[in-house]
Parts: sequence; C-alpha cells; structure tokens
Amino acid sequence: MKMQPARLRDLTTDLLQRRGTPSENASLQADLLLEAELRGLPSHGLQRLPLLLSRLDKGLADGRARGTGTWRRQAFLSVDGERGLGPVVMMNAMQSLRSVLAETGIAIAAIRNANHIGMLAFYAEAAARYGLIGIVMSTSEALVHPFGGTKAMLGTNPFAIGIPSGDRPFGLDLATSIVSMGKINNHAMRGIPIPHGWAVDGEGRPTIDPQAAKTGAIAPFGGAKGYGIGLAIELLVAALAGSDLAPDVHGTLDDIHAANKGDLLVLIDAAAGAGSARSLAMYLDRLRRSLPLDPGSPVTVPGDGARARRAAAMEAGIDLPQPLFEHLMALEAA
Amino acid sequence: MKMQPARLRDLTTDLLQRRGTPSENASLQADLLLEAELRGLPSHGLQRLPLLLSRLDKGLADGRARGTGTWRRQAFLSVDGERGLGPVVMMNAMQSLRSVLAETGIAIAAIRNANHIGMLAFYAEAAARYGLIGIVMSTSEALVHPFGGTKAMLGTNPFAIGIPSGDRPFGLDLATSIVSMGKINNHAMRGIPIPHGWAVDGEGRPTIDPQAAKTGAIAPFGGAKGYGIGLAIELLVAALAGSDLAPDVHGTLDDIHAANKGDLLVLIDAAAGAGSARSLAMYLDRLRRSLPLDPGSPVTVPGDGARARRAAAMEAGIDLPQPLFEHLMALEAA
Repeated sequence: MKMQPARLRDLTTDLLQRRGTPSENASLQADLLLEAELRGLPSHGLQRLPLLLSRLDKGLADGRARGTGTWRRQAFLSVDGERGLGPVVMMNAMQSLRSVLAETGIAIAAIRNANHIGMLAFYAEAAARYGLIGIVMSTSEALVHPFGGTKAMLGTNPFAIGIPSGDRPFGLDLATSIVSMGKINNHAMRGIPIPHGWAVDGEGRPTIDPQAAKTGAIAPFGGAKGYGIGLAIELLVAALAGSDLAPDVHGTLDDIHAANKGDLLVLIDAAAGAGSARSLAMYLDRLRRSLPLDPGSPVTVPGDGARARRAAAMEAGIDLPQPLFEHLMALEAA
Repeated sequence: MKMQPARLRDLTTDLLQRRGTPSENASLQADLLLEAELRGLPSHGLQRLPLLLSRLDKGLADGRARGTGTWRRQAFLSVDGERGLGPVVMMNAMQSLRSVLAETGIAIAAIRNANHIGMLAFYAEAAARYGLIGIVMSTSEALVHPFGGTKAMLGTNPFAIGIPSGDRPFGLDLATSIVSMGKINNHAMRGIPIPHGWAVDGEGRPTIDPQAAKTGAIAPFGGAKGYGIGLAIELLVAALAGSDLAPDVHGTLDDIHAANKGDLLVLIDAAAGAGSARSLAMYLDRLRRSLPLDPGSPVTVPGDGARARRAAAMEAGIDLPQPLFEHLMALEAA
C-alpha cells in the first residue's frame, strides 16, 4: 500500500500523542521512523511503531521524558534516559553537548535507560547539519556470535559517523553483524535459504535454514576485524553508559522489559580542525568519478544511496506491507 | 637469526642516538619497533629502521622534535609534529591530553607533520595502562581501492582502541585493508599467488599475481562496510589534522618526502563512565569460554594473541630475517 510520507507522519504523531507524548516529542519520534522508511530501511521504520505504542501503554516507555543529564566532567555528560523515547533523549543530549562544544571542541554523552534510538544516521546527519562531526554507537540484545564462536554473545552494535563535507555530507551507518535479524526473518517468511556464513543454529552449527538461524546466532561482518569492532562498541558503551552487556540486554525487541542497553554520542567541532569541508567534498567527488569494477555501477560514498532512495520515496510515497498498513489503520480507528 | 630483545633495543637506541636523537626519544622509538617484533608484526618492526635512519640523515625526520601543541579548544589539541619521530610526538600529545582530562573527561589531539607512528596498539595500550580509553587513527599513502572501485584512493587507515578491563586490557588494532601490502610483498618474494579478492592490478582487473597487485590496489576489508570505515578514518583525520588525503600522501614508505599524513588520538577518562572494568573483564572471560566453532580453536578477544606472542618472544628471542640482520650489523659497524 503506497502512502504519502506526510500522511504517515501525521498518523504516527497522533498515535503517540494519544498515549501522553507531547507534540514535540511525538514529531521527533515520527520523523525518525519516517526517515528510516524513506531510506528503504523498513526494519527501523513503522514496523517498530506498534511495539513502541505497546511499550508506552505499559509504562516501559514514557513519551514525556527527555532524559536527565549529569555533567560528570566538563565535556562528559552521563544521561539517565528515564524510559524516554530514544530520539527524544538523544536529541536532548545533543543539545546539551552543543552547549559546551564551543568551549571544549569535543564532548561525549553516555546514555542508559532510553528506548530504541532506531536509525543512527538520523543523529550523525543532524550533527553534520550543525557543522559538527557526530559519532553514534548503540548496543542491543545478544544476536551475534564472536569470530570463531557459535553463541549469541554480542549485540548487532551499530555505529554511525557524520562528517560535514559540503552539500552531500558523509554519513556512514552500519551494524557490525554480517546481516540484520530482520533480513533473516524476511528469508524465513519467504521460505528461501540464507547464504553460507550468515548464521549458526541453536546448536552452533553453520546453517542455511533461516528458521534455524533465528534460534542461533548471526556472524559478525568482516571476520575477525568486524568482530573486534562490534566487541569494542559493546565494551565502550557498557564502560561509559553503565548499561548492560548483550547477554543481559532486553527491551528493544519486546514489550515486557525496560530497555537496558546503552547509547553513546560524541560530537566534535569541525571548525576546531585544521582541514576544510571543501577539500573533503572534492576528494569524495574524485572517489565517485574513479574507475569502477563494474562499468554499470559507479563508485559511491556512504550516504549517497540513502539520499537517492529518500528523494525517490518523497516522490513516489512509502510502500507499506499490507498487514502493517491494516494494523496501523486499526490503531488509528481504535 | 635469533636475537635477544634487549640486544636489539640497545642497537636501535644507539643507531638513533648517533643521528642526534636524544636518549629518551630514541628509547621510545626503539620500544615501538621492538614491541611490534615481539608481537609478530615484523612489517611494523625493525625492517622499518633503515628507512627511518635514512630519513634522519636526510632531515626528513628530526629526532629531537617532540611536536608543538596548540589548544584550539579546551579539549582539542592541534599538533604540529615538526618532523618528529611518530611515537615521540604521539606520546608527547598523550601527556598533554592527560593534563586536561581530569577536568574535561574526553580530549582529542589532531596531529600533522609527524613521522610514521607504527603499531597503533602501542598507544591504545599505553592509554589503558593509565586507566584511560584510547582511540588512535592514522592515514597513509593510497593503497586501497573503494568498494566497487579499482583505483588506490585510500590509505590502509588503521585504528586501535584500548579499554581498561582488568589485567588483560582489551586492545583492538587493525588496518581497514583486507591485507597489508607487506603480506602481498611477502607472497611476491616467495612466488606464490594471492587469494582471490585481495587485490586488483594496475588496470583495475582482479588478480592473484602478487607482482601485479603491487602496482594495483588492495581491497578494503569487510566489503562495503569496511570501505565505509576506512573512508571515515580518511576524512576524520584530514578534517581535524589538516593533513593530506591519501592520493597526495608521501613519507611513510620512502626517504624522499616529508610525511604529510595525519594521526588522531582520543582519550576518555574511564573513571567518568558509569560502568566498571571488572564487569568488562568478566564478560570477556565469558566470551573466551563460549563454545567455539572449531573445538581446537577457543574464542579469543582482541589483544589475547598479541599478549601470547609477546610472552613467547620474550623467552625465545626475536627471529630476524638474515638480510635484515646483516643490514643492522653493517649499520652498527659503520
């Protein structure tokens, strides 16, 4: 079902407001979900809304909370998210960091007790629009096995980096798993096997059966190196936010537990650096023009694909799966 | 030729001092090269010494310089390395950052005009020994092609992360290329083909011929994600240090040009965080004890392998290739 983005944004905002979420907070949460849809990332889009509404209904999320920050050091903000909506707590933390950045040049917020922050590029790009370098990390439930291991011991531990570089800012956003659990679910739903190397089953055996993979563990991306990066994020977030480690994390995929994962936001004032956004933009254009391996697939830069998909979806609308559409309509009519 | 580490350290220090490097700086540079040898990373070990001595002889490196830092903001240090030795400039910057860290909780040094900083784990682990989280990034000559591309446009752009976690600190250190140019050179020397996917030749065609790869480009690790990370490092370093971008970088592999790459060092006071090193250590032990894919290969944590190799080499000595041994002996006798 094709829907106009504005219609879906209004619907989302309304459903959140009906559950005690103030207008400003509801708009921000709606923007985050819509931006994910627009960029072709439905796993972080509106399919997360029903769960979030249920969490609000049950008091596991509080639409009014914005999080309370304590300055542990001049450029180190420790944030209790107070069960607030992820984007509300994150953007509030970003504004707090911005208030010291002119003085310190770099600042960090370590956040616990906030709900799912969704697509990390949202925050990295917001930073870049302020002329700041933004680095975002988040942890999650244990879904990924160590390199050479078989048990789900790490989160998918995504991170994002936004860097001002002219009118097409660099925006990297990736999970440290080889694939998302959403994609494995999608293969299961369609009844097609998953590629070798994506996952192991509940007994730790390599599998191409998506159903078996769902009770097992996903591989880290990039072998030992990707495992190392995912593990570094796991440790950095827990060390600084005081949040739980993956095997004990709940609350981003259920409506039973409070969310006890953690999130980090680092901002750096790009104006304090000795380089220039213009020289970065010129270099990125050299990359885009460089000889591709496949003449039909030009070299791209992180952020290019999302921008193109977003532009197309703003024209064509967002294509919601029929069951999700009907679920949202029923919620609206309730 | 097996050599005792202490003997090689003395030899290295002596050769550096003869070229005007003060004792303290020479010891630090020698420590860095020896630590790489001890951990089985010869590409960052003594094979770099003859080039470094030549750079000192030619004035491309200055053994006396420690770098001059300017505080652009309270926690943002801009460093002109003044052609100093990489580890001297880096450790001097680390001490400067430490002087503000109790107040700010996080601080960054952006460094240009320093010589090759070698094995990045050296600095990340030094930070962890101070109870600090250390994050290090460095750029290099263009050796890596973009994902989907064929031209060498990025450095191997390594980064390292050290995190205090009890008596076995977490220490990640990796290049964002799929393999080092040193390993490709080694295949060429031994006349054996390289695996598919490692490199393209000078015309941009995938190749398994190591000689052809030497004039081409190495693949990024981990596909599009690894490319994104390598590119993020390229941009972060250039934006903050004002150093050159890979296609224009010289001076870490030659004795003709000043080194115009850049380096970043971020320190975070782990004591400002809400987590504990003890809980990280317990989690890392859970990982190590978790079921491996191959019963003969237990799950490891970044830093474990280096520690084991170092302990073995401290006992058994360092095995230098005969030509390098003879070269060093000739330099000593000169």
